[in-house]
Amino acid sequence: MESRNGSQVLQEALNEDITSFFRSAPPLKDDHNVSRKVHDFIEQNSSSSGNGKSRRIVCVTSGGTTVPLEQRCVRYIDNFSSGHRGAASTEYFIKAGYAVVFLHRRGTCQPYCRSLPEDSFLECLELTRDSSVQVRKTHSKAVESAVRDHHSAVEDGLLLKLPFTTIFEYLQNLQLVALSMKNLGSCGMFYLAAAVSDFYVPWESMTEHKIQSASGPLDMRLSQVPKMLSVLRNDWAPMAFCISFKLETDSNILLKKADMALRKYKMNAVIANELLTRKEEVTVITTGERITVRKNKNLGDDDVEKPLINLLVEEHSAYIKEADTPKTT
Amino acid sequence: MESRNGSQVLQEALNEDITSFFRSAPPLKDDHNVSRKVHDFIEQNSSSSGNGKSRRIVCVTSGGTTVPLEQRCVRYIDNFSSGHRGAASTEYFIKAGYAVVFLHRRGTCQPYCRSLPEDSFLECLELTRDSSVQVRKTHSKAVESAVRDHHSAVEDGLLLKLPFTTIFEYLQNLQLVALSMKNLGSCGMFYLAAAVSDFYVPWESMTEHKIQSASGPLDMRLSQVPKMLSVLRNDWAPMAFCISFKLETDSNILLKKADMALRKYKMNAVIANELLTRKEEVTVITTGERITVRKNKNLGDDDVEKPLINLLVEEHSAYIKEADTPKTT
Repeated sequence: MESRNGSQVLQEALNEDITSFFRSAPPLKDDHNVSRKVHDFIEQNSSSSGNGKSRRIVCVTSGGTTVPLEQRCVRYIDNFSSGHRGAASTEYFIKAGYAVVFLHRRGTCQPYCRSLPEDSFLECLELTRDSSVQVRKTHSKAVESAVRDHHSAVEDGLLLKLPFTTIFEYLQNLQLVALSMKNLGSCGMFYLAAAVSDFYVPWESMTEHKIQSASGPLDMRLSQVPKMLSVLRNDWAPMAFCISFKLETDSNILLKKADMALRKYKMNAVIANELLTRKEEVTVITTGERITVRKNKNLGDDDVEKPLINLLVEEHSAYIKEADTPKTT
Repeated sequence: MESRNGSQVLQEALNEDITSFFRSAPPLKDDHNVSRKVHDFIEQNSSSSGNGKSRRIVCVTSGGTTVPLEQRCVRYIDNFSSGHRGAASTEYFIKAGYAVVFLHRRGTCQPYCRSLPEDSFLECLELTRDSSVQVRKTHSKAVESAVRDHHSAVEDGLLLKLPFTTIFEYLQNLQLVALSMKNLGSCGMFYLAAAVSDFYVPWESMTEHKIQSASGPLDMRLSQVPKMLSVLRNDWAPMAFCISFKLETDSNILLKKADMALRKYKMNAVIANELLTRKEEVTVITTGERITVRKNKNLGDDDVEKPLINLLVEEHSAYIKEADTPKTT
């Protein structure tokens, strides 16, 4: 029997962390119902061929996760994310012929709703003289296209929206979706745009009641969330086309960290974005290539997601083609 | 010269904390505009007598505050609060003849919108065959009353909505509103339903860039937010009728802590509520009295806020009457 090498030992330690994370997580509410919805959505789309091929399916994750600091949760740590990137990308994936599982933080930006005002309901609607509700003229175009495009995506069975709030709900849902997508092989894609917490308080070691404030400063120790990208890549959906994101505020370390993530988690691409410029440009990092994608108004881009998704769809096509080609040795 | 007593020393220490909190806070955006809006709103309502008396004005605070952990903020600590209590109470205060400054966390529940579904815009609207947008029949009553009541409150000049996100924005706005309300004397009310962070990271000692996750568990030390109730009561609006809230998850300590808050901050009332039962009942604690207010469906209460605001309006009337009565010694 060979002795275990360093990488095996690391892998085992990670597996232990992951097992312990899921074991300690509070059970997902409505587990069964979500599981059935996901299964049906993937089943339907992977068999609805048309051209003899099954439809490609992408799981887009979007928005930040929360980390409760108390079991009966009053306080939590949150990651900033409007969900704009995930919502915009979902629209372009559907336009490109994909079906999308939109795994999003409750209350963040929804696909087709990006151009609505913040307080959309009250801003966009008004009462007529006979007391019926109508859309204000100034917002009619935005409201019409939001309602039309959103409803048609849902009714055509191309958009499944799954909400989460905590890091526990996010990872449990991601696991559920990934395991359901395993059979899609290279036709499945993960586009992991959610801002996932790096630190958490294990559920079991969490205080039950609200932390009391009377006794001076608060010292907290947070554990690292185990790196789920590894287990997604290795176990949950090993053949899928996987794209993760790296957000930094310091441009000096951004590309280096994105490169590291690409190798460490065997991603197909890592999207590097800096907090201040992320709406204008991102860099797509693949093995051996760095392509900077910019919003180009002259080419009619309303946002950076349009050229980004075009590029990724091409890369995914190449990946599927390669996976389908019988290997000659 | 007399030597300073213990309470003076404590007060000076608190004042120093408060000065240092405001000095270190990032400047409020659009400061001037907010300040003008608040000034005009209060001016208009306090002079719009009708019956020779000025209208009562209440500042309702609502929703949780965030505490940034980084200056270019990716992560923050948040306090759970849907904003339901503040939104509901605002409706009842307006019904009772008050003008309301609704100082609320961005994205939380808005007055008159409580019965709308979560994803209200897309749930409530649909396209007709000729591609115009209409309200779904199932939601028409809720949408109509939301739009009607909200617009009329705003158009009648009885509702001013001010949003905040961080603890810094919240306290800066509260100070601004309170100083503007000072001249109202006993006709002004503060109904402090917002879930305010007890702990924060002083802006100056905050890391500029995103905290790196590579190096094991994260240890954090958070400072206590100075108790602004004292300064609100003593300096900003000393004659106002002040109501604060105490939320606990542990019913064993709730009433005791509410009593302490009443005395310590010289509130006129403290509303004690427990996380699990807060939508059904609360206890109103005043000097010498504890009144439990319950939602009573037999009396036509849709919520606990209806009887609660009725009670508080009565208490406020008694307070104004007492303040107006010349003291005989």
